[in-house]
Amino acid sequence: MKAVGIVVEYNPFHNGHLYQVEQAKEITGADVVIVVMSSSFLQRGEPAIVSKWSRTEMALANGVDLVLELPYIYSTQKAETFANGAIAILDAIGCDYVNFGSESGDILAFKQLVSFMNQHQTEFNKLVKEFTKLGYSYPRATSSAFSKLQTDSNVLQLSEPNNILGYHYVKAIKEQRSAIQATTTLRRQAHYHESTISPHPIASATSIRKAIAETDLQQIEHVVPKQTFNLLATYKRNYLTLHTWEHYFDLLQYKVLSTNREQLREIYECEEGLEYRVYETIKKASSFAEWMQEFKTKRYTWTRLQRLATHILTNTSKVEMEEACAFVKPSYIRLLGMTRNGQTFIKKTKQHRETPLITKFAKAEGIQAQIEERITNVYLSPLQKKHQLHEMRQEFSRSPIIY
Amino acid sequence: MKAVGIVVEYNPFHNGHLYQVEQAKEITGADVVIVVMSSSFLQRGEPAIVSKWSRTEMALANGVDLVLELPYIYSTQKAETFANGAIAILDAIGCDYVNFGSESGDILAFKQLVSFMNQHQTEFNKLVKEFTKLGYSYPRATSSAFSKLQTDSNVLQLSEPNNILGYHYVKAIKEQRSAIQATTTLRRQAHYHESTISPHPIASATSIRKAIAETDLQQIEHVVPKQTFNLLATYKRNYLTLHTWEHYFDLLQYKVLSTNREQLREIYECEEGLEYRVYETIKKASSFAEWMQEFKTKRYTWTRLQRLATHILTNTSKVEMEEACAFVKPSYIRLLGMTRNGQTFIKKTKQHRETPLITKFAKAEGIQAQIEERITNVYLSPLQKKHQLHEMRQEFSRSPIIY
Repeated sequence: MKAVGIVVEYNPFHNGHLYQVEQAKEITGADVVIVVMSSSFLQRGEPAIVSKWSRTEMALANGVDLVLELPYIYSTQKAETFANGAIAILDAIGCDYVNFGSESGDILAFKQLVSFMNQHQTEFNKLVKEFTKLGYSYPRATSSAFSKLQTDSNVLQLSEPNNILGYHYVKAIKEQRSAIQATTTLRRQAHYHESTISPHPIASATSIRKAIAETDLQQIEHVVPKQTFNLLATYKRNYLTLHTWEHYFDLLQYKVLSTNREQLREIYECEEGLEYRVYETIKKASSFAEWMQEFKTKRYTWTRLQRLATHILTNTSKVEMEEACAFVKPSYIRLLGMTRNGQTFIKKTKQHRETPLITKFAKAEGIQAQIEERITNVYLSPLQKKHQLHEMRQEFSRSPIIY
Repeated sequence: MKAVGIVVEYNPFHNGHLYQVEQAKEITGADVVIVVMSSSFLQRGEPAIVSKWSRTEMALANGVDLVLELPYIYSTQKAETFANGAIAILDAIGCDYVNFGSESGDILAFKQLVSFMNQHQTEFNKLVKEFTKLGYSYPRATSSAFSKLQTDSNVLQLSEPNNILGYHYVKAIKEQRSAIQATTTLRRQAHYHESTISPHPIASATSIRKAIAETDLQQIEHVVPKQTFNLLATYKRNYLTLHTWEHYFDLLQYKVLSTNREQLREIYECEEGLEYRVYETIKKASSFAEWMQEFKTKRYTWTRLQRLATHILTNTSKVEMEEACAFVKPSYIRLLGMTRNGQTFIKKTKQHRETPLITKFAKAEGIQAQIEERITNVYLSPLQKKHQLHEMRQEFSRSPIIY
């Protein structure tokens, strides 16, 4: 049995994701599709609109065979760490292939770039440093350094978000000496940052979330599979909300206003005096949107600052992130859901697997589990008390969803 | 000009307080009444029902000439530390007398007891330790130790709450070598813990708060001066709430659920594994009342556990409390309000005063001010955003209330 892995957020699962699942199978000829999916908070530093369990169901209903958790220690990170964690998990479960969507669509270009960058690492780092000194944000500094270093215009464009992730997947596979074979699919139509929904059946997750937030679920019916639509509707009906940053703002503000600047500095990604800026801006803000407008700065990307906000909200420190990310191999793999086909894969590959596969969170141990417990607690905080307490209990005892 | 000091919470100011103000003046013949009043959180570990500013107005309207802030580092503490801080401030402002209500009413009994206890300190400490080992709460252990040591039944009963405070005021005066002269007034009628309101014009603050919480303001009209009644009504109308623990429960729960047990242990008064009990009980609770029912234990008094909850909510650590309380003298005296008479006293005594008198919080410095800023932030958190932000700004810039 051959398996192809995909790194996902499914926030929410849409027709573009469905297309990718089909493509990944077709390109690789794999029998099993495995996704490693961000748990509660996402790479752009925001809460997932619905729980990992709802998103797992969306995936299993649409061709995915196994859903594994990408824990917080990797999910809310810059591309490099995010990719390292995701590849390590896909390698540990026993994937043969990985597939990712990209603006390029040419896997060779990624491999060449990884080699090229390996040869020019010192030069590149020096250029990044120079651009950073000019006040460029880190992504802008790297892309400028890259342009200066690589004058061949046929080469992979690292300014595109999915190309960056793809580059880091390929790099991680190489660095981890994994046997996984990377493949890529050209992304169809919707640009990552596109923010309005057209009548076309493919739309970006960003535009889908925007449509949900600004109007109602009906607007997205034609761009998501029916199970996604139903699951979102059910979640909203049961919990009265789809999670957004605004639901967490009171907690974030309380957290900052009740924390000394010295303590804020201990939070992961709180660098270069950002603790003062966080405190001074949040004490004047009445909403998350209002706060971000005041907080934002040329020096850091919006995404980077949202990730910092997430780490503050979840009380995640530099010290524990360093400890948690120090291991190259994940300490466990957590299974969130599977099809019968996925179940067969799990059994057949069992003997080759070194990393423990956890089906109940109660059995997870170590710093990664300790952080993840806290993350779940925080993620569930805006729910009504009865749902919050119920979901917190459930998180420990529930078995993977079988589809 | 002679001044008499009173240590108060005025939560809220009622007819019993009015009586005490009059008595304090009469007994001592003082021209000026100075109160040192708890800022935002109280000795029993709960938020004041209305802001320090409303409570200051209540006081000034009813015979008090100067209102000074008793900062959090003293206000939410066991009797000994509470009394030490309060006496230090009354001494620093230049009080000639202090007056306190007591179940005894005989100042000589307090002085004799302080001397007696000084002579039997070692014996007493040993007895307390023995009773604590038997699982007694600290107050029960001290009162049992005291009964065993002091067999004379005519002596002061330390099981009465106001006698305990009085004892510590007299002890603090002695230990701080203050020239303040202690006086006491027999408390009239209402017992401290009494919890229902009778038609009589004197009722306990506990019963008044209970009546407000369970029915409406009208129920307390006959037991408080009209200014108290109007100020409570105005506060409730403006801010939609009188502060209770339930308004802070979501924040407290979030705080505990997002904090590792090791970090919880750093919180002031979090001793002997209480961090586990806090975490395990709060994750199942849907309200503060429900939580306290689960959290309470024979080993600690309800009050002690509520104080711990307050320190968790306000993120107050052992380290900073140790630093803040290390000074015998307060680093500043903060003036919240005054009458013309009080203003005259301030001017006349200026040359003898060593401790800076702060009229705007923006000018306060040091660890005491740093903690107090955070306390104010937390206290104001449950208000509607516009009020919360406005009051936080105001706290820094507003001048004392002049009545």
